Amino acid sequence: MIALPWKDVEPAKIHRLFYPQVPVVLTAEFQGHIGGMPAIWCMPLSFNPPLVGVAIAPEHATYEMLIGAQAFAINWLNFSFAKQVGELGEESAKGVRDKLSTVGLSFVKGSLTGQPMIRDAEGVLECRLHERHRIGTHELIVGEVVAASATENFTEYWDFSKYKPILYAGTEDVGRKCWVFRSGIGEKTIVPLKHQV
Amino acid sequence: MIALPWKDVEPAKIHRLFYPQVPVVLTAEFQGHIGGMPAIWCMPLSFNPPLVGVAIAPEHATYEMLIGAQAFAINWLNFSFAKQVGELGEESAKGVRDKLSTVGLSFVKGSLTGQPMIRDAEGVLECRLHERHRIGTHELIVGEVVAASATENFTEYWDFSKYKPILYAGTEDVGRKCWVFRSGIGEKTIVPLKHQV
Repeated sequence: MIALPWKDVEPAKIHRLFYPQVPVVLTAEFQGHIGGMPAIWCMPLSFNPPLVGVAIAPEHATYEMLIGAQAFAINWLNFSFAKQVGELGEESAKGVRDKLSTVGLSFVKGSLTGQPMIRDAEGVLECRLHERHRIGTHELIVGEVVAASATENFTEYWDFSKYKPILYAGTEDVGRKCWVFRSGIGEKTIVPLKHQV
Repeated sequence: MIALPWKDVEPAKIHRLFYPQVPVVLTAEFQGHIGGMPAIWCMPLSFNPPLVGVAIAPEHATYEMLIGAQAFAINWLNFSFAKQVGELGEESAKGVRDKLSTVGLSFVKGSLTGQPMIRDAEGVLECRLHERHRIGTHELIVGEVVAASATENFTEYWDFSKYKPILYAGTEDVGRKCWVFRSGIGEKTIVPLKHQV
């Protein structure tokens, strides 16, 4: 019997095996309130119709806005905005009129859904809520993409010499607990968590 | 009115906005046949129970094995195996006794599911089929993780100074069509497609 090079990974850490992952920012507006939250569990689900899935915990205020609006946007930001993306994960949208502005981001409204799209986004999808499935602790939101846009850094594919995606790599304790974001070229940004755990 | 920096992305290219993504290799055995295929649309869906989702086109032979077995494994390989991962995407498992061996990979059987796990994997999940949803062109396979393992390169998180994940970044035409894989530190590997399109 050949010894295997593996050891057990405890259940609470399984999701970390998927790192690094590119976080998107999920944005939604309902009744005049603008929400935005980073989401790491997000991927395409179908080519035609173009459907995308994002799994989020239903406790989020932005989730409630998304359900209220029956629509939402998905935004990709350059690595230079890693700090803002981290900060959006630190506060709730509850009771805030425009959460995006609290981290210095502005938005424009999508022409097909009216949903907020981050002005500095490299890429953005306007989605209509297509279906949703409760799966364990999270809800899988399936959106139909009704419009997709990107900067000139995307043509056939991303030009990664210009668009530097954020690669989420977990947290790190350097005196205080921080998010860790890496660029695709070895740079690293750490964003301190406001609420130390 | 401020001009927006975006242009439209055609529907067939929407999934490329999600790049770079870490491909996993989905493995399954049914009736003595070993299948393996790269999957890029794969993410966690729930913390507790630990559930993961992988969206694949049901035409794949490995899909049929997975459904037959009602179980499967998810494998993460180091960047040094990018070529093998690409090659697994180039051929079908149909009629092949052990597809993994055709690209030089060996496997061990998971103790809980009996499913094949790639011996050189950095991380591996044993999953039982939990539920599945047809969503557009693809089927979302939801697996309950019954065992998770990783090399010593994973403790609290991945040590990216040792584990170099594969970052799938699309294809490129350098005389012939190639897959493009990037490491997290700016290295790039291109794998020629066997079947030129």
